[in-house]
Amino acid sequence: MFAQKLVAAILDKNSRVCVGLDPRLDLLPEIIKQNAINKYGETLEAAGEAIKNFNREVIAAVAPFVPVIKPQLAFYEQYGVPGLMAFDDAVRFAHEHGLLVLADAKRGDIDSTAQAYANAFIGQSKVFSSKTSVFNVDAVTINPFLGEDSLAPLIKTTQEFGNGIFVLVKTSNPGSKDLQDLVVDGETISERLAKMLQQHIQQEKLSVGEYSNVGAVVGATFPKQAAVLRKLLPNSFFLVPGVGAQGGSVQDIRVFFQRNGLGAIVNSSRGIVFPSEANGQKNYLEVIAQKAKGLRDEINTVVGV
Amino acid sequence: MFAQKLVAAILDKNSRVCVGLDPRLDLLPEIIKQNAINKYGETLEAAGEAIKNFNREVIAAVAPFVPVIKPQLAFYEQYGVPGLMAFDDAVRFAHEHGLLVLADAKRGDIDSTAQAYANAFIGQSKVFSSKTSVFNVDAVTINPFLGEDSLAPLIKTTQEFGNGIFVLVKTSNPGSKDLQDLVVDGETISERLAKMLQQHIQQEKLSVGEYSNVGAVVGATFPKQAAVLRKLLPNSFFLVPGVGAQGGSVQDIRVFFQRNGLGAIVNSSRGIVFPSEANGQKNYLEVIAQKAKGLRDEINTVVGV
Repeated sequence: MFAQKLVAAILDKNSRVCVGLDPRLDLLPEIIKQNAINKYGETLEAAGEAIKNFNREVIAAVAPFVPVIKPQLAFYEQYGVPGLMAFDDAVRFAHEHGLLVLADAKRGDIDSTAQAYANAFIGQSKVFSSKTSVFNVDAVTINPFLGEDSLAPLIKTTQEFGNGIFVLVKTSNPGSKDLQDLVVDGETISERLAKMLQQHIQQEKLSVGEYSNVGAVVGATFPKQAAVLRKLLPNSFFLVPGVGAQGGSVQDIRVFFQRNGLGAIVNSSRGIVFPSEANGQKNYLEVIAQKAKGLRDEINTVVGV
Repeated sequence: MFAQKLVAAILDKNSRVCVGLDPRLDLLPEIIKQNAINKYGETLEAAGEAIKNFNREVIAAVAPFVPVIKPQLAFYEQYGVPGLMAFDDAVRFAHEHGLLVLADAKRGDIDSTAQAYANAFIGQSKVFSSKTSVFNVDAVTINPFLGEDSLAPLIKTTQEFGNGIFVLVKTSNPGSKDLQDLVVDGETISERLAKMLQQHIQQEKLSVGEYSNVGAVVGATFPKQAAVLRKLLPNSFFLVPGVGAQGGSVQDIRVFFQRNGLGAIVNSSRGIVFPSEANGQKNYLEVIAQKAKGLRDEINTVVGV
């Protein structure tokens, strides 16, 4: 089960950090870009090749310090089919290095279509007479705007295949106020969504300290809302984006966790993968590894573990 | 500009129909599946090959009767990279046949990530020293759950590259009531979203009968809500899913259109591409073409054009 694997990996590495793999071609080391261009010219294929090779280096560098990576699909889709091949490669390579993989896809659609997304990421697709895993990640982020029936096939798939979902409940961006903070019958849309998820999770009859495969995305930029949501979703892991470049502070991160020091993973993308200190430096992988280790230690101090 | 191309294509073919290309491997003609299996075995590659070949036949069959097709990304992603190659092929093949292409992707994310999705679908990606179109569709569907700042890069991209977006305002599924129908300060979330979009569209200073590249998704299953939204978004095209299998009626479709007989395109996926009359029949492409023509004529009668 995803939630159990996540807890085990967190405890194993004593790390609550998720590294966001959001490749930015402009920021990749020159040598990696040049090798790819030499092989394929200035093409999407070369972009995919460069991203694949950089990701592999980053995954190997951070693997000792983090339990999980989170590739953001948009940054792969923008390089077309070669970009998605690089995504696929990152999933396999991370698994080979013992890491869990969350696909940050924020998919959401009506029932039959939601099932197709579930098949693509956390279930299996029927391919003629047999079934096969496709992108084969451990969990995927989900957008709940289409309502309960759009979540049902995904929740069912987490139960069937033991993988996870993280449903957007309160996102890290300023615009999350526009819909998610609106108040209906005395509660915000975020709170309402949390209760909707908890109704499903309750049916699992989990004990205190046991976690569901159904998690929530709650932005680091909104610790006050997180405190409320934390109580509404006692058996859910929170995926917490927004520290660093987006303005969320590690000092405010305690409230996303539970007393046991579990219940959340804190994502950092640019802050670990593209720190200014690594820019143009030969030892960039050492800098990246130190950034992952540093964030791990900083979070552990704040959480008190 | 997308909106102008759409109006021209609608008038040229006197058709307000969009064909949803949502491939279902189980329902493809046996001969197409067998040829693909003979070539690649029972693999994802064979699935992609079968879908590609079926789509090409369908596109050629419906092209005389419809202005636009709408591939649903989930049904391609569930076959992995080969599935996405089939999506890419459908876009090219449809363009060669003079059709506009809407990617039903329902993407939505924070600003920098939304920009990456915009690059992937309706803008261009920087690939080393140059810029290139990637999936190169004419418009893409967008999920607004992350709020105004998540829409901004997409709206900007529609202006820069002249392509379109259709923002989810009221979706066709029963669960659309869960969030979209909630009432805040006397108006539903859907109405609020419509007003948010209209604030952007107003800045274009369009005349009556001129259309923005910023459209809305409004489900055929909710004609009452559509009547309200129609007034709130006078310069937007509505993409209308949900007739047929989902329970929306063509008889109720008038209210989605404007007096000029424009302002909406009505999607049908299964009803045109996989009608029961075509199942197992040698003349399935004739049946598909007749279904497209039939829906065109039925809608035109209801709209009164």
